[in-house]
Amino acid sequence: MATAWAHRYAQRTKRMSSSVIREILKLTQQPDIISFAGGLPSPDVFPIEEFKQACDVVLSEQGKQALQYSITEGYPPLREWVVQRSSRYGINIDIDNVLITSGSQQALDLLGKVFIDPGDHVLVEGPTFLGALQAWNAYGAEYFTQPLDDDGLVIEGLEKVLAEKPNFMYVLPNFHNPAGVTLSGERRKQIVELAHQYDVPIVEDDPYGQLRYSGEHIPPLVVYDDQCHGEGNEKYCGNVIYTSTFSKILAPGIRLAWVIAPKDVIRKMVQAKQGTDLHTSIFTQMVVYEIGRDGFLDRHAKTIRAVYGERRDLMLAAMEEHFPPNVTWTKPEGGLFLWVRLPEGVNAQDVLEAAIEKKVAFVPGAPFFPYQGGENTLRLNFSNASHEQIVEGIKRLGEVLHQELAETSKV
Amino acid sequence: MATAWAHRYAQRTKRMSSSVIREILKLTQQPDIISFAGGLPSPDVFPIEEFKQACDVVLSEQGKQALQYSITEGYPPLREWVVQRSSRYGINIDIDNVLITSGSQQALDLLGKVFIDPGDHVLVEGPTFLGALQAWNAYGAEYFTQPLDDDGLVIEGLEKVLAEKPNFMYVLPNFHNPAGVTLSGERRKQIVELAHQYDVPIVEDDPYGQLRYSGEHIPPLVVYDDQCHGEGNEKYCGNVIYTSTFSKILAPGIRLAWVIAPKDVIRKMVQAKQGTDLHTSIFTQMVVYEIGRDGFLDRHAKTIRAVYGERRDLMLAAMEEHFPPNVTWTKPEGGLFLWVRLPEGVNAQDVLEAAIEKKVAFVPGAPFFPYQGGENTLRLNFSNASHEQIVEGIKRLGEVLHQELAETSKV
Repeated sequence: MATAWAHRYAQRTKRMSSSVIREILKLTQQPDIISFAGGLPSPDVFPIEEFKQACDVVLSEQGKQALQYSITEGYPPLREWVVQRSSRYGINIDIDNVLITSGSQQALDLLGKVFIDPGDHVLVEGPTFLGALQAWNAYGAEYFTQPLDDDGLVIEGLEKVLAEKPNFMYVLPNFHNPAGVTLSGERRKQIVELAHQYDVPIVEDDPYGQLRYSGEHIPPLVVYDDQCHGEGNEKYCGNVIYTSTFSKILAPGIRLAWVIAPKDVIRKMVQAKQGTDLHTSIFTQMVVYEIGRDGFLDRHAKTIRAVYGERRDLMLAAMEEHFPPNVTWTKPEGGLFLWVRLPEGVNAQDVLEAAIEKKVAFVPGAPFFPYQGGENTLRLNFSNASHEQIVEGIKRLGEVLHQELAETSKV
Repeated sequence: MATAWAHRYAQRTKRMSSSVIREILKLTQQPDIISFAGGLPSPDVFPIEEFKQACDVVLSEQGKQALQYSITEGYPPLREWVVQRSSRYGINIDIDNVLITSGSQQALDLLGKVFIDPGDHVLVEGPTFLGALQAWNAYGAEYFTQPLDDDGLVIEGLEKVLAEKPNFMYVLPNFHNPAGVTLSGERRKQIVELAHQYDVPIVEDDPYGQLRYSGEHIPPLVVYDDQCHGEGNEKYCGNVIYTSTFSKILAPGIRLAWVIAPKDVIRKMVQAKQGTDLHTSIFTQMVVYEIGRDGFLDRHAKTIRAVYGERRDLMLAAMEEHFPPNVTWTKPEGGLFLWVRLPEGVNAQDVLEAAIEKKVAFVPGAPFFPYQGGENTLRLNFSNASHEQIVEGIKRLGEVLHQELAETSKV
């Protein structure tokens, strides 16, 4: 391509760097690698037969509608399903509070498009979801980073950052990706109150809410936001934008998720989505509605929880057995990930290189921080590997860690 | 939502106004309205049985792959299908020149994300595709507008605008939406040469290329770009970014399209797409590949051409019979639209209001211009209405036009 021009766009997109994780995933797609790197659901639990039946029903009964252009907001019965399901969790909304998106990644992209101008700041957790940074880097976002501990986002120091007026704050309350921690109920309440006080909206990303294997359900932040649960046209007009997805409770390959927000925010996001992809595949929306309409997703979530919960327990037990004593990790109550902290001075990137030699892969923690930090941390996924792979992979990783720590005199 | 914040985002998104067309479509969804307003394909030609079979085959044979996360670039066999199909039209590429997108609208959005910073200029035709303006307004684009005549984009004056260095130029060569005109071969050659001379990339949007009902095929601009058809890694590295879609030759509701571009551009668009929606539904991609792999789309295009060609002829004949003599219109050789020019001083918006009274709808031409112009023009769609609706609707519209022109003393 013409060179002067190529240079121009290279400058323009320099921040849109390819995802580190996806590069690692490419490396680890060799079949003999045991990978704890991705965030893949287990294909063993995909309800393939239910998809087949639903495709047949939708195309037989409503084929013309399923293949024609549709409205940007999403398939009304599916949005109504979201309304009904949300009410179980105490989220009091109506259909105009719901937007269907092409995966949660698109929800994050649309939030960037609506809310971020170059140089604007977003308050994120450190570490945070890499896909959010990718989405918002493209809009020229800068970040304030607030640390996590075992109870989630740390409250100390939060007011000071909120006073800097970030455009919004981004929180993953349940079974954090990558950190594996869950935000306590007390902190959820405090965060919602502080966000109101400082007039900073909260984006609550909850892909794993239904995947709890132990402990007690904690209501989402949006439920703690009781400043404005009105009726009718203003049913929900609070300060929290909530997003969740069908990727973890059904299948990720279909790219289907939803956003719950005040109606004025939904309207802006709908406008942004019109110019972005017009609408999400109406065929897919109708198929997923057909699968989910009779309560299948609740029954299916139980199956998934049983499978993943067992894998989590197995991985935690294997780590206990094989990891050096001065390595620590989170004990997630759900989700797909846990987070490992190595002694200060040990670089997880070096550990990865040694692990790849032994045919085990994971993701180093540093890319999950917007600017710096986390060099001695790493993320492990426990949902995608088989029992045998988990046991063998953690054993090998333990050997690598013992060796690396010995070399850096940390054992 | 918190008011100070609501004001802030209202400012930020003021250009992201809702599509005029979609607002009109809402008005015209009353069942007794004859609508020439939308750009909907006819659902009568959707291959519903083929979709059913393909869903069954894909889920039965590759269900786990079809429901799992996939790569951003798109399903490799579908991209290979694009490569093979393109070679028939003289486009010499390989798989790394192809990106699958969630409809052409996403291709336009990704181009905006990669190439446009606020205040940058894009060279568009006047009139141009409204969806492109929507996509690029969100990135703060400004526009240079170059007029169309019956042979497409006017060459006179083009050099002067190219010398202003727009980030790219946007051209719809075949059966233009909304104008219905086709860019001549001679002009395609000239435009490609001028674009090279001024180092301005061309975005060639070709959703209707296969829908020609009369006249001779003209090669796409990308074929005239012979500066750089190399081999291997640099198979295509020219100056044209080409996009087309499955929406018009298969079904729009599934949101599936593709981009052909030099590999460095594809790489940037892949990075942008990662942060935008990770990937397009792999299930949908596999289903469409299954439908298209044996040549079905060529056979199906013949069916569509027969149906739409007849509707075009019927509409043109009815206009000839019923429209006032000082109203003119384009005679499209394909596509879905024709463009009507009323006498100067007649406002198509007023005509629309009178037409809605008579239960006929169309889209006024002004919104298809980025800043101003086209007040006395309008767009008619001929693909979606039945024969009876076309005859009756054009008759009523003729009555409205006679009356409106008489009132403004233009008859």
